[in-house]
Amino acid sequence: MSRILIKDGYVITMDGPPIEGGYVLIEDDRIAYVGREEQKADQVISAKGCAVMPGLVNAHTHAAMTLFRGYADDMPLQQWLEEHIWPVEAHLTDNDVYTGTMLACLEMIRSGTTAFADMYFHMDQAARAVEDSGIRASLSYGMIELFDEAKAKTELQEGGRFVRQWNNAADGRITTMYGPHAPNTCSREFLSKVKEQAVEDNARIHIHMLETEAELNQMKEQYGMCSVNMLDEIGFLGPDVLAAHCIWLSAGDMDIMAKKNVNAIHCPVSNMKLASGIAPVPELLSRGVNVALGTDGCASNNSLDMFGEMKTAALLHKVNAMDPTAMPAGEVLKMGTSNGAKALGIPAGILRQGMAADIILVDMHTPGLTPVHEPVSHLIYAARGPDVKTTIVNGQVLMEDGIVLSIDQEKVIEQASSAARRLADKAKAN
Amino acid sequence: MSRILIKDGYVITMDGPPIEGGYVLIEDDRIAYVGREEQKADQVISAKGCAVMPGLVNAHTHAAMTLFRGYADDMPLQQWLEEHIWPVEAHLTDNDVYTGTMLACLEMIRSGTTAFADMYFHMDQAARAVEDSGIRASLSYGMIELFDEAKAKTELQEGGRFVRQWNNAADGRITTMYGPHAPNTCSREFLSKVKEQAVEDNARIHIHMLETEAELNQMKEQYGMCSVNMLDEIGFLGPDVLAAHCIWLSAGDMDIMAKKNVNAIHCPVSNMKLASGIAPVPELLSRGVNVALGTDGCASNNSLDMFGEMKTAALLHKVNAMDPTAMPAGEVLKMGTSNGAKALGIPAGILRQGMAADIILVDMHTPGLTPVHEPVSHLIYAARGPDVKTTIVNGQVLMEDGIVLSIDQEKVIEQASSAARRLADKAKAN
Repeated sequence: MSRILIKDGYVITMDGPPIEGGYVLIEDDRIAYVGREEQKADQVISAKGCAVMPGLVNAHTHAAMTLFRGYADDMPLQQWLEEHIWPVEAHLTDNDVYTGTMLACLEMIRSGTTAFADMYFHMDQAARAVEDSGIRASLSYGMIELFDEAKAKTELQEGGRFVRQWNNAADGRITTMYGPHAPNTCSREFLSKVKEQAVEDNARIHIHMLETEAELNQMKEQYGMCSVNMLDEIGFLGPDVLAAHCIWLSAGDMDIMAKKNVNAIHCPVSNMKLASGIAPVPELLSRGVNVALGTDGCASNNSLDMFGEMKTAALLHKVNAMDPTAMPAGEVLKMGTSNGAKALGIPAGILRQGMAADIILVDMHTPGLTPVHEPVSHLIYAARGPDVKTTIVNGQVLMEDGIVLSIDQEKVIEQASSAARRLADKAKAN
Repeated sequence: MSRILIKDGYVITMDGPPIEGGYVLIEDDRIAYVGREEQKADQVISAKGCAVMPGLVNAHTHAAMTLFRGYADDMPLQQWLEEHIWPVEAHLTDNDVYTGTMLACLEMIRSGTTAFADMYFHMDQAARAVEDSGIRASLSYGMIELFDEAKAKTELQEGGRFVRQWNNAADGRITTMYGPHAPNTCSREFLSKVKEQAVEDNARIHIHMLETEAELNQMKEQYGMCSVNMLDEIGFLGPDVLAAHCIWLSAGDMDIMAKKNVNAIHCPVSNMKLASGIAPVPELLSRGVNVALGTDGCASNNSLDMFGEMKTAALLHKVNAMDPTAMPAGEVLKMGTSNGAKALGIPAGILRQGMAADIILVDMHTPGLTPVHEPVSHLIYAARGPDVKTTIVNGQVLMEDGIVLSIDQEKVIEQASSAARRLADKAKAN
């Protein structure tokens, strides 16, 4: 049995008051002890000057889209998708998705994210990148049915094959979900079948919901009701559903989401950048809805740094409500950690005996985080990804003192740069 | 004469198209050449994989407030000021302001800011910190008259003494401004006198303007007109004025600001965090107003990282206007560089022969900035302070490859931590 002791840190458990100078003991892939007593171990990691906390959970992204970081910005959504993103995505190969996902894993490990929820294509390759990089992920194949019966069949087959083939792979670091794209790009019948199969496979469902006003209008026209009502009517909604974005919600929609324990995934940076709107997060939280945070894909962010996402979430809702007490730091930190873990259904997001050893050390001994009046405030309002010093997933140290151990960083940068160039050239040539 | 050549970078001049693999030659404190031809030099700095660009200009801050970073958050403005910030500020000593400003200079140099506009107290000490750290700054003593005639006299004396004593100090790196606090905390008569004296001393004026709706209401009650009208009536407004915040503006106010060439300093993070409101920046820009960016003090941000400020500015106005084309990356980069330099009246913000050698290198060869489709997009949407590799001010290399040469970083962290602890303890004891 491997025993790692993290000592001398400011331990933020997300499960009670912080412990100054506390100890966290890892036995193999689990947390064996959190408290004030020194423990015996084979390896000791000093957390002097650091906050020790659960790793961040990025609850909605399209990891391989790192390859399109900065490829197209500052334009209307349809033009962005139709003229830039879709044409370049059309050329993606298995190899590209492996490389792009590996780059995403590298960026996330560096910035303190220990688990993410992904929805994309060529997902076997995404899974291999997760396996190789050491990170944890809940993966789904993005099924876009587009009201086509033949496509419905093949998409569901592929989604199901992926769910069953990869669930619990990589020492349990990989879990799988169904990924129907959105209520307005998949038919009601298709979504019913997805739900049925997800229940059968005991898998969660990852879906976009009400990201745009266009979806709301389309749903009303097509069904005479909004996405939440339609999904509720077919028995789709439940605690197994991760609904990304959730911007165009009525009070009634939020009541339904609360009643059905749906997980709302808030992506403030992407929603601002694409001018999609502002999700009613304080209203969701006040109803008891589990709200987690996601960066969305790198083409609309353009970063996977969850510290940026947390700060933006805290700021956006203050100014939107014209209330500086809205979304206090502690609440946002929960959204970035324990709420995210709850959404993904993984035993993480809290430092407690028996939980998965997904832990990060944030170096507070830097100019930008000096002085330390209140560590939780710093984590939301002042820290940035590069302040993360050490990242541990499933008991494995993936980054130590800023050096990533599980990935050849130079190789990934080189391969991703070359893949991105090739894709951009191909898209231009069309 | 000292000659430094920066070579092999992606040179973003802010004065024409970028130059890939370009050269920038520094002679003493000035830029001597920008272009495609290699130049002779005593020292060569490789910018391979880096963007080479003008240093960022933080056009509104209260530098020494780094000591209160994270001291109080998530509360209403008046409670925050009256119960937390003012009580702790009351105990500030000369030494604290030196230390706090030094910490600010350190953080800014590390994150690529080469010049800042400051307004605070104990300003001789702030000036000494600027002198010692090597950064450039436009400093002002914050005059709060509070409609008290005796105070008016002493405040103006102190403001004027500081302006005259420190202008053009530290090899010209320090310039000085008058700093009347705000139109609702200073009388009309006082503001008239300030303007008069500023014109006489050929100094700029740094003032808060319409940060809160409370100011707008107070002005209407007191004068029957808003701050912009009142200031215009007394001949206060001109290209020598830096007006910080500018949130509660009418269309007429913006027309006046444009006509009088007032500089608007936008502080999106602070305005969001304190829920002050959203400045009408696209409307100001469309009228031709020079809009620069500021972080405001560290107690309401809680960072001096201008990359965060730029990203937030780009995002906020997109979602506010529900227009993803609002505030494109290139426009925001101007706000963070050349517009800031214009507001401060310093010959910087553009890489061009004859300008001050205030230059930064941003390392694009990192996971978070891979791949590089468009460097300007990365600078706004993906880069963070720690991506800055090298910072040069007035021809002096202050940071090289991430190592700050002009400041003893450990000593500053230690002194600032100890000063902050002492101040917090004193405030608690009261």
